[in-house]
Amino acid sequence: MSNATTVHEPPYYAVIFTSKMGTGEDEGYGTMAEQMVALASNQKGFLGIDNVQDGKLGIMVSYWDSIEAIQQWREHTAHKVAKQKGKNEWYKGYSLKICKVEKNYSFEKE
Amino acid sequence: MSNATTVHEPPYYAVIFTSKMGTGEDEGYGTMAEQMVALASNQKGFLGIDNVQDGKLGIMVSYWDSIEAIQQWREHTAHKVAKQKGKNEWYKGYSLKICKVEKNYSFEKE
Repeated sequence: MSNATTVHEPPYYAVIFTSKMGTGEDEGYGTMAEQMVALASNQKGFLGIDNVQDGKLGIMVSYWDSIEAIQQWREHTAHKVAKQKGKNEWYKGYSLKICKVEKNYSFEKE
Repeated sequence: MSNATTVHEPPYYAVIFTSKMGTGEDEGYGTMAEQMVALASNQKGFLGIDNVQDGKLGIMVSYWDSIEAIQQWREHTAHKVAKQKGKNEWYKGYSLKICKVEKNYSFEKE
């Protein structure tokens, strides 16, 4: 699942989702986040996802083979419901950046 | 410094650095990482940086106004030294993705 050391043949697309968590209850957040990752993984055009949280800030980067695949995922009903719940309950703020990956490199120890 | 809820006028560029930490000593890593963030912030064309680590996986995304600014940062001597030290001592593996940000959105609670 992780792309930490995985690269694909460019061009492909990345969605950088950066979020600041609120200070309130985060009940249900972990479960919802896991469900969204599982759901995204089954979408057409999905290439991979990396997700790191430190309790205050989160960065989730998902990779896709086309802009159309990203658009379909953004329109997915369950994803829309989760997004609204995130705005209402969990996030203090977030940004979403849709990017074309032009070059990539990787390094892995044997 | 954080771009968690900051967006710029596209197009601009993002460097997604995803790393898997080794299991050995991480002596000096935090200090070096802070130095690199401070150094990057003073580079021409630097727009911002977000960095999250959970001890196993790290995602650092830096934003730049041009490909040339990224290239200059990659050629910076201190950055090269840190990269080599990272390969030798800290990272089990990493990937680096150079991306053009085409669209972005943000949400922030008042």
